[in-house]
Amino acid sequence: MSTNRAVRIHGKNDIRIENLPIPEPQENWVQLRMSSVGLCRTDVHLFDEGRVDHIVIDKPITIGHEISGTVSKLGSGVTSLAVGDRVAVDPCRACGDCHQCCRGRPNICRQLHCCGVLHADGGFATYMVTPAKTCYKLPDHVSLEEGAMMEPLSVGVNGVRRAGMVDGDVVVVIGAGPIGLFAMQVAKALGASRVMMVGKSMLKTNSFKALLEHDFSYTDINPKRLELALQMGVDQVLKPTVGLSDPKAASEELKAALGDEADLCIECSGAPGVVDLAIHACRPGGKVLMLGFGDMAMNVHLGMAAVREIDVIGSFANLHNYPECIRLVSEGKIDVRSAITHRLPLENVMEGINLVRSGESVKVVINCGAC
Amino acid sequence: MSTNRAVRIHGKNDIRIENLPIPEPQENWVQLRMSSVGLCRTDVHLFDEGRVDHIVIDKPITIGHEISGTVSKLGSGVTSLAVGDRVAVDPCRACGDCHQCCRGRPNICRQLHCCGVLHADGGFATYMVTPAKTCYKLPDHVSLEEGAMMEPLSVGVNGVRRAGMVDGDVVVVIGAGPIGLFAMQVAKALGASRVMMVGKSMLKTNSFKALLEHDFSYTDINPKRLELALQMGVDQVLKPTVGLSDPKAASEELKAALGDEADLCIECSGAPGVVDLAIHACRPGGKVLMLGFGDMAMNVHLGMAAVREIDVIGSFANLHNYPECIRLVSEGKIDVRSAITHRLPLENVMEGINLVRSGESVKVVINCGAC
Amino acid sequence: MSTNRAVRIHGKNDIRIENLPIPEPQENWVQLRMSSVGLCRTDVHLFDEGRVDHIVIDKPITIGHEISGTVSKLGSGVTSLAVGDRVAVDPCRACGDCHQCCRGRPNICRQLHCCGVLHADGGFATYMVTPAKTCYKLPDHVSLEEGAMMEPLSVGVNGVRRAGMVDGDVVVVIGAGPIGLFAMQVAKALGASRVMMVGKSMLKTNSFKALLEHDFSYTDINPKRLELALQMGVDQVLKPTVGLSDPKAASEELKAALGDEADLCIECSGAPGVVDLAIHACRPGGKVLMLGFGDMAMNVHLGMAAVREIDVIGSFANLHNYPECIRLVSEGKIDVRSAITHRLPLENVMEGINLVRSGESVKVVINCGAC
Amino acid sequence: MSTNRAVRIHGKNDIRIENLPIPEPQENWVQLRMSSVGLCRTDVHLFDEGRVDHIVIDKPITIGHEISGTVSKLGSGVTSLAVGDRVAVDPCRACGDCHQCCRGRPNICRQLHCCGVLHADGGFATYMVTPAKTCYKLPDHVSLEEGAMMEPLSVGVNGVRRAGMVDGDVVVVIGAGPIGLFAMQVAKALGASRVMMVGKSMLKTNSFKALLEHDFSYTDINPKRLELALQMGVDQVLKPTVGLSDPKAASEELKAALGDEADLCIECSGAPGVVDLAIHACRPGGKVLMLGFGDMAMNVHLGMAAVREIDVIGSFANLHNYPECIRLVSEGKIDVRSAITHRLPLENVMEGINLVRSGESVKVVINCGAC
Repeated sequence: MSTNRAVRIHGKNDIRIENLPIPEPQENWVQLRMSSVGLCRTDVHLFDEGRVDHIVIDKPITIGHEISGTVSKLGSGVTSLAVGDRVAVDPCRACGDCHQCCRGRPNICRQLHCCGVLHADGGFATYMVTPAKTCYKLPDHVSLEEGAMMEPLSVGVNGVRRAGMVDGDVVVVIGAGPIGLFAMQVAKALGASRVMMVGKSMLKTNSFKALLEHDFSYTDINPKRLELALQMGVDQVLKPTVGLSDPKAASEELKAALGDEADLCIECSGAPGVVDLAIHACRPGGKVLMLGFGDMAMNVHLGMAAVREIDVIGSFANLHNYPECIRLVSEGKIDVRSAITHRLPLENVMEGINLVRSGESVKVVINCGAC
Repeated sequence: MSTNRAVRIHGKNDIRIENLPIPEPQENWVQLRMSSVGLCRTDVHLFDEGRVDHIVIDKPITIGHEISGTVSKLGSGVTSLAVGDRVAVDPCRACGDCHQCCRGRPNICRQLHCCGVLHADGGFATYMVTPAKTCYKLPDHVSLEEGAMMEPLSVGVNGVRRAGMVDGDVVVVIGAGPIGLFAMQVAKALGASRVMMVGKSMLKTNSFKALLEHDFSYTDINPKRLELALQMGVDQVLKPTVGLSDPKAASEELKAALGDEADLCIECSGAPGVVDLAIHACRPGGKVLMLGFGDMAMNVHLGMAAVREIDVIGSFANLHNYPECIRLVSEGKIDVRSAITHRLPLENVMEGINLVRSGESVKVVINCGAC
Repeated sequence: MSTNRAVRIHGKNDIRIENLPIPEPQENWVQLRMSSVGLCRTDVHLFDEGRVDHIVIDKPITIGHEISGTVSKLGSGVTSLAVGDRVAVDPCRACGDCHQCCRGRPNICRQLHCCGVLHADGGFATYMVTPAKTCYKLPDHVSLEEGAMMEPLSVGVNGVRRAGMVDGDVVVVIGAGPIGLFAMQVAKALGASRVMMVGKSMLKTNSFKALLEHDFSYTDINPKRLELALQMGVDQVLKPTVGLSDPKAASEELKAALGDEADLCIECSGAPGVVDLAIHACRPGGKVLMLGFGDMAMNVHLGMAAVREIDVIGSFANLHNYPECIRLVSEGKIDVRSAITHRLPLENVMEGINLVRSGESVKVVINCGAC
Repeated sequence: MSTNRAVRIHGKNDIRIENLPIPEPQENWVQLRMSSVGLCRTDVHLFDEGRVDHIVIDKPITIGHEISGTVSKLGSGVTSLAVGDRVAVDPCRACGDCHQCCRGRPNICRQLHCCGVLHADGGFATYMVTPAKTCYKLPDHVSLEEGAMMEPLSVGVNGVRRAGMVDGDVVVVIGAGPIGLFAMQVAKALGASRVMMVGKSMLKTNSFKALLEHDFSYTDINPKRLELALQMGVDQVLKPTVGLSDPKAASEELKAALGDEADLCIECSGAPGVVDLAIHACRPGGKVLMLGFGDMAMNVHLGMAAVREIDVIGSFANLHNYPECIRLVSEGKIDVRSAITHRLPLENVMEGINLVRSGESVKVVINCGAC
């Protein structure tokens, strides 16, 4: 193929499929022939809002950051890879020199490039180029589709590590989307004695004020997701009946189902009120890990958390953990494949975006051509 | 003296000064002749609310938990202390056997006794009894009044340790009450490269809803407290002009004064909106430590904190750190004496409670007799 | 039974089986009817040397510290246990008040009592008494024999935790005795990506001087132990051919077999030269964990370890980890049962001691009567 | 000046002062006009042995790795520095991609370049070039001579951090050479409650066998070094009288002088027997930190250390801590200037090497021209 077909975002509600020149790899970079690339809620957010956090899209980039592909050309100086190697790509590239990079935290580097999201072209394309050191070879028995799942999996690994989960912890995961399903398996693989998955609320509200005014119940739970959680090895699932406007009562229901309090609650829903529920569900000394993206502001019983030494921990992207993710999948400890419910050709990317927004799918993978 | 004059709380708004029998020390306990005992906002809260957190006072106890005294009698089996020893008393006694105690976190033991607050008689009395192991000898040049300050100082040490402050960190302390003044000095003593103290808002509101509806400015700042902070060695003070209803703007003012972002923000005010200000003032990867007690629920940009990996850390009481506190005071690294603005006889305890409630005093010490 | 038949050590080479009064439980203690109690190399050492480390036995005690039994009587105040409960007993009792206890490290308390070893009667008896809080209930499907194995298992857990092993580490265990077999399984259960077991040298020398003068080869390896390691799930075994007098060459053989360098080497043999082999087998930044007891002094390339930041970590007894050990066995993650190769009645304890000394057995359990 | 006068090592005992072309900075590098550059025992070792660890010098390089200078030319793309900036230079450059670099430990990267020592030209020259990111600006009131001391100071900071020293620790430093004097001050600055400096043995033996055969006493202690330690703020000094062949007796003398046991012993002498002394001087749960370079192999009571959970920790070079070092000097917390006893012109470098070898000097600085 002599052209590079690519999905480009130009701004809010403006995604275009374009023909670009095939990019050539510079020194220490490689060119990849793209294969499976995952579609993520961040892509939906980019489309709907035209920005990432506070950074507005001001020039078009190719989106797609859950990337796998096959090495098709080497830039000069590359010795660690060969043409034909099947790789997963870590989309994040830190500056290496700033305060955070020097403290060993490149994932929160202020100059972070994240290809497909910020400052660099991503993977919804026929070809892309990337530094050789962002590519991680896949073992023969790990598929390219599984390779594309390393990015969301790495988010779970980073979070569980940051939260300092220890062997034997009782863990509750709230929200059975891809991040929740993967984080749940990470908790199991890293030694949780028991993990309960709580169904995700699909509340559409964007404001905690709405929450104060109404007693929203959990609605629109996708029952297939909880079944998937069980298939993936969760110990227990709960579809709550008590609404989130009364976090204490909701936590009582949760703790009754669990028969215990949690050492670690992982918020993977982005729904209003869930962080507060999580605080109420922890035992003193527990941790709340926030992996879901929802409102920036929220009403929570932080004062109550403080006197119980329940810490609220954030997590962003990943910290050098692709090798661990590949190993966990390779050893069969984590099943990422079953999360993929839809496969679409690159031309149908808008259908994928709508599927993810509706919650009908779990994971949508865009097939970019190579296999 | 043949009677034990003691300040007893019987319930909400019901404090009585009573004559009790002099308590005798059981095996491994000692009897103390009380000296200086600090009065703390928790005592005010006990008086005003008649409960601690969710635990309602249902039988009278002697209050006063910032305790020093002189050993006046030994129970059988006590070899580590002698009559006449001057000691500071850690009021907390954990069960030693529960999940938290076994994980090395007795300060959040569910069966925690805290004498003067929960389940056990405290120090506003002529005599008290306490296990010998809760008593820490004071060096000759550390006064009993200073000994009474070990408890609030230990709160600062516990918090700064929990927050994982490292040498060279830039620290902001919000709220110049006793906890803020002590935590500030702990941060300096443990290696902060720079500490800025921000004046405490004296907002009376108990609800974040009020905050949404009005643009409260900081009011009623006690300027003497900021002067005291400077005298105690803080690098910089700030009396904010921007109200807390716009945490982003307030944080811009704070960061402009600081000329940097914070690695650690310590909330010591209990005022609504301050935790949100603290989150906005941290650099990515920073920490917010909550030491002030205010509303249990609050509106905060936790979602923003999460994506920047800014963790929100709580802290309760202390963790075996009386020896460290005594050493820091003994070596002259921390000045607790200057915080004591008022000294009152035991009979005037209600005057002390009113002083603390008004914010006119910094630290009030009750003189229980011995010296 | 109206008498307490007990195995007592009176000094070096002086073990006697005696009839003692049945001990009554004091307040907060319980009386146990003894069941299976493991025999350990420490018991052999006690018999052979008449001392523990530098502490000489100066009054007789009942030995046996790998203890399980059934509660037969409750002291006053005991509410957490009932007559008939099946329990494993943590033999260590710390003072709770010293520098180490206050720093959360009771296992290295200087006043440590270890029943069956130091200052307190152990489990080779019909009955014993112990504080209720040292008893851990066994789930129904965990046998009393397995309960007796919690003590050596807890040694492995403590060591692997102290060494800071992280998920994905490549681990080498040297020495396939009970501690090695259990530590190997702990490393697997806590996330090692690969564990290799290296056969234990049975060198009888007590001095590193001998090592300098001769090229001892590994001899007398018990092949059944390596088979047992495979059955218990180790990834790989190695029976070395290169002697330990050339640690570099021996490590080359080890690393060639491993196809890698180690993140963590666990010394479980007590044989001279093995720590030096372990240092040579680690990658820079790796760890050497010493669990085996051998010579106090040894010749090692510590200077080489230092410039590679390979830390040498010790470990003693356990740190509150009986609940974790019971859980790991209960969940089937660790097989302790297969290590038990011999079961003997209490009267045959000397036969057991000889079996352990010879290395013919793996684990010997003394049957004290109850079941 | 139109030529680059440089001190080059060609192999064992072969140092030549040569005229080289002035090096031009490539992209993202800078050219420095050299000022003060420290001379270190490693330089002596390079001269005497012609190798670093196991890496033999096979092509000439310019030595000198304790570097300060003034920026004289910018390579393309450099924006963080300007001509005329006064900087200290971190000589180490890691690959950024390997296992260690990805685990946040670039100082033990296997592809580490250390200019002046390994693979790259150092600072004993009129000019050198280095990546801009290895340069750290000095505040106006910190001299270039002090800038040259950041490298040995950073070794102390890295070590004390790796050893996990906590505020209040009792620390013993053995060996009053530059590393010992700086590490001592780091321990004080980071919160040690008390630090004792023990005189360094100047034993010339290269083998622990010699130690077994003779009762060497400490000899040739340079009394000026202990005086310097006192001037720099150490709490106490000890000139031992008991020889190292009896580490237990030597440690008894040390502990009697200290009136306590050590939480942390820092070995800074490289003398045989000192690590063993350090192990004996620690309390259970203490740490031994090895900063001195001496024999690779040594005889030590590691078995005794293990059962007391006394860990032996190594340390190599530094981990992103130049900013902290500059701050500590800038704030007056650490005095590096007083350690400089000799200043020599570049042409006299051999005189400097002989001074360091003899122990007559403390720190020798080579004046390379600029100031």
